[in-house]
This record gives sequence, structure tokens and C-alpha cells, in this order.
Amino acid sequence: MSFDTALSAAAVALEAHLTRVLADHPGVVGDAMRHAAGGGKRLRGFLVLESARLHGVPQDRAIWPAAAIEAMHAYSLVHDDLPAMDDDDLRRGQPTVHVKWDEAIAILAGDALQALAFECATRPEVGTAALRADLALSLARAAGGRGMVLGQAMDIAAETAATPLTLAEITALQAGKTGALFEWSAAAGALMAGGDPLALRVYARAFGLAFQIADDILDVEGSEQAAGKRLGKDGAAGKATFVSLLGLDGARARAADLVEQACDALAPYGGDAENLRDAARFAIARQS
Amino acid sequence: MSFDTALSAAAVALEAHLTRVLADHPGVVGDAMRHAAGGGKRLRGFLVLESARLHGVPQDRAIWPAAAIEAMHAYSLVHDDLPAMDDDDLRRGQPTVHVKWDEAIAILAGDALQALAFECATRPEVGTAALRADLALSLARAAGGRGMVLGQAMDIAAETAATPLTLAEITALQAGKTGALFEWSAAAGALMAGGDPLALRVYARAFGLAFQIADDILDVEGSEQAAGKRLGKDGAAGKATFVSLLGLDGARARAADLVEQACDALAPYGGDAENLRDAARFAIARQS
Repeated sequence: MSFDTALSAAAVALEAHLTRVLADHPGVVGDAMRHAAGGGKRLRGFLVLESARLHGVPQDRAIWPAAAIEAMHAYSLVHDDLPAMDDDDLRRGQPTVHVKWDEAIAILAGDALQALAFECATRPEVGTAALRADLALSLARAAGGRGMVLGQAMDIAAETAATPLTLAEITALQAGKTGALFEWSAAAGALMAGGDPLALRVYARAFGLAFQIADDILDVEGSEQAAGKRLGKDGAAGKATFVSLLGLDGARARAADLVEQACDALAPYGGDAENLRDAARFAIARQS
Repeated sequence: MSFDTALSAAAVALEAHLTRVLADHPGVVGDAMRHAAGGGKRLRGFLVLESARLHGVPQDRAIWPAAAIEAMHAYSLVHDDLPAMDDDDLRRGQPTVHVKWDEAIAILAGDALQALAFECATRPEVGTAALRADLALSLARAAGGRGMVLGQAMDIAAETAATPLTLAEITALQAGKTGALFEWSAAAGALMAGGDPLALRVYARAFGLAFQIADDILDVEGSEQAAGKRLGKDGAAGKATFVSLLGLDGARARAADLVEQACDALAPYGGDAENLRDAARFAIARQS
């Protein structure tokens, strides 16, 4: 199965699974959770499913941690889009939750999606108790105040900082904001099989950073219609980005280097990991 | 050890433990997490520690789920106090997080405290992998869109509802908003010992509801200085409360009935559960 086909299949499977998981969430917050959890590229969930496939883990087990990371990512977008944060009205081509409903519903739907992520990671269907406990603990660390939230906080602080961030600071920021969840996703399949996740972690860290550099390039060069979100905001806010620090060509070269590092890290898996390599290449070629 | 002494000892132990756990959380969000996780009555953490003690579980293990539920409760307060939610400027006698810092920091600190709750519940120190996985799964369900968040959403919706809530609706709302975390807390100690948590669940449900009725009474009769938060807001907002539906005497009688039910549920534990009975009695006698 080619990368495109595998990514589409993962997106279809995740959409169906999240719809089932969210079916019994009542009320307006349930509606908002379904809205926020719908759509998207499902790259993080795809990483879980591909990493699981590489290790011979059946998809009916891997779909649970894949849904967990997609719920976690969806919550982070809902909160990130709030007026007090990035103040975005468009996400995945749809109105953001606080625009479609209101801020209180967006806060609560995001909160409930984070709880749902931990529910999905610890469901009995995932596997042994040791696996469920370890996935939840590592997910908590990846998502929390020393992981994703720290990256988001550094991002917010950068908007009002007296001096623009340095390259090292932006790299650290993105390692938290994107890298932590990417790494958890890629490692999950190896952990589910009791295997060593190191190669997949190295892959995911390089991939995650390339993905963010590509985001900065898209923010300058992309089409809002294709991206399904507002662009050009970082430049307008005078924020340092990989593009402002490295230039467009320098940023492209750095992203290409990282994609090569990511691909090389997968050497132990040989040709079986070609979809994961294509995922990293896709990260810097995408329009959305 | 009397109830007062046990509650104070639990508060001291939890304050020290959360300080240690949060020591390596960097930046402004780390500061905001420490601010939000400090103080409070620590009733939920006390329930975990007492329930663990009843089942012979050492406190150095039980302190972890106790810290988990206090982190979860702290996150819910930070988000509940936001301008788009209850819009409160005072909590535990201190400025709320969005007042002391700003809304973005409050959103992120709350998010990170929720992740921290799951980290504390799944740390290896808690016990077996099966226990850690089950605590995390039940915590996710208690906190999420069919538990605490659902109760909070019903509470927000009640503010703009065309007709005031009925007694059955307010009871359902509070079962989510307060009851779910109370129940998880009281059950945790039994689960840690591999025991049956049913009696403690029945106790916690009745206790949680009595606690909320007492909150409604305090909102009418209490002192802001003693409570450490703003009072009189429900009446000003024209919201139905246990007091508006039952009257002050009716609400007091209902709370007293529930405390009796809570105490009766603990019969299997005999005199060993006297601190838990006193906790329920305290719920309706407290000034804060």
C-alpha cells in the first residue's frame, strides 16, 4: 500500500473510530468534541498505525492509541485557536469551536478531549496493563507542562518578547509543541509489541521539526484555501520563525536535511518503513 | 487521629508532595501551575488517603493518586474561573490565575495540570500496572465529557436557559461536576488494595451532593473572607440552586439526610471510618 493510500485509509479508520468513541458524549460539549475531532490529516494517528504495523501489532488494537493522540491533538488545536491564544476563526476548513459555539464550550470541549485521549490510551482493548499504564504515563509527560504545553507557552511568550527567539530557542519550542506528540506516536507501535522504540523516536524528532519548518514556509507561501486555516500571521505579528531566521531557501534546505535524517533513522526497518519515509517527505511537500 | 488533625495532615502532605512534583515544571506556566495547585481544603486528596488507610495501603503510595485528584481539581478551578466561564477573580483567598497572569497562561496551566493528574495516577510508585491503568481509565471517565466536564457544561447552560433547572436536573449536574471526582477519590484506596469500592462509592455520591448543597447555602449565607472566593453570584445570576428550589431550611434538611446516608454506607468499616463520617459532617458545617 502506497503512502497516500495508507494515509487515506488511516484517516478513514480514525474518523470512523472517533465517531464511535464519541457517539455517547451528550449535549453541546459532545457536539463540539465531534466537530473538533473531525477532519485533519491524521498524521499523528497514522504514525501510530504505521509504527504498529511495522511491529506486527493488529490495527484493531493500534486504533486506540491512534485515536488517543488524535484526541490530544484536537484538544490542543481547540485551545490554541481561542481568542486569548492564537485567536483563529478557521481550522481544517471549518469554523473553530469558539466561533461555531462560544469560548466556554471551546474550553470545555478541549478539556474533555484531553480526558478522552487518556481514556483511549488506557482502554482494555489496547493490550496488557503494563502497556496501558506506560502509554498513559508517557502521553501525560509528552502533553504536559514539560512537553506540548511548554512549547505552546514558549510560543505565546515569543509574541511579546523584547528580542526575537534564536534558532536554538525556536527549535526547543517546536520540540515541545510538535515533537513530543510526534515522538509518542511513532514510539507507540514499538511499545505495543514490546520492541525498542529508539529508531522511531529519532525519526519522529527529525520529522516533527521538518514538519514545523514546513509550516513556517506554508505560513509565508501557502494558500489559505488549501491549508484550511489563516496564514501569514507570524510575519504580521513580527514573530521569529525558521523562515525569518534562515531565509526561505535556508529553511527549505534545513527541512530537507531533517527529512533525510528521519529517513536514515529507519534503516533498521529496511523497505518496510517506506511509508514512514514518505510521510516525512510529504511533510515538506504538502500544501496544508 | 481526629478528623481535623487528619485533614490538616493530609493537606500538609499533599502541599509538600505537589511542590516536589511541580518543582521541575519550567517557566511562567510552571509558576502558574504551582500557584493553582497550592492551598485549598484538599478534601478529595484526603478521601484518597483515608480510603487507602482503611484498606492498609501505605501513604507513600496513596499520595500519588491523592496528588492526581488534587491536580485534576485544581485544573478544573483554573478553567472554571476564566472570564468566559464563571469569571472569578478570587480563589482560595488568592487572585485567580488569569488575574495574576493572563487568560492564555490560565488555559495552558489548566491543561498542564490535567496532564499532571494522569502522570501522578500512572507513576510506577502507585503500584501494579493493572492498578495504574485502571486508575487512569476511571479518572479519564470521571473527568471527561460524561463526567465532570458534562456537569460544568450543564452549569454553564443553566445560566442562559429559558426555564430554571429542576431539582432532578441540578442533582444530575452536581453528580457530574462534583460527584464524579469525589467517587473516584473514595474508591481509589479500595482499588489500591484490590478491595471492593462499592460502599465508598455510595458514601462519596451522597457526600458529594451534600457538599454541593452546602456550597449553595454558603453562596447565600457565607462570608467571602472565610470562603476565599466570591459569593452571592448564583442568586445575582438568577440561577436555580438547591436553596432556590428547596428553601434554606429544605436545603439544610436535604444535606443532613445525605450526610446520614453517606455515614450509613460506611457501616462495613465500623469505627475505622469515623474520619470519613466526620468529613461528610464537616461538608455541611464548613464556612469555606
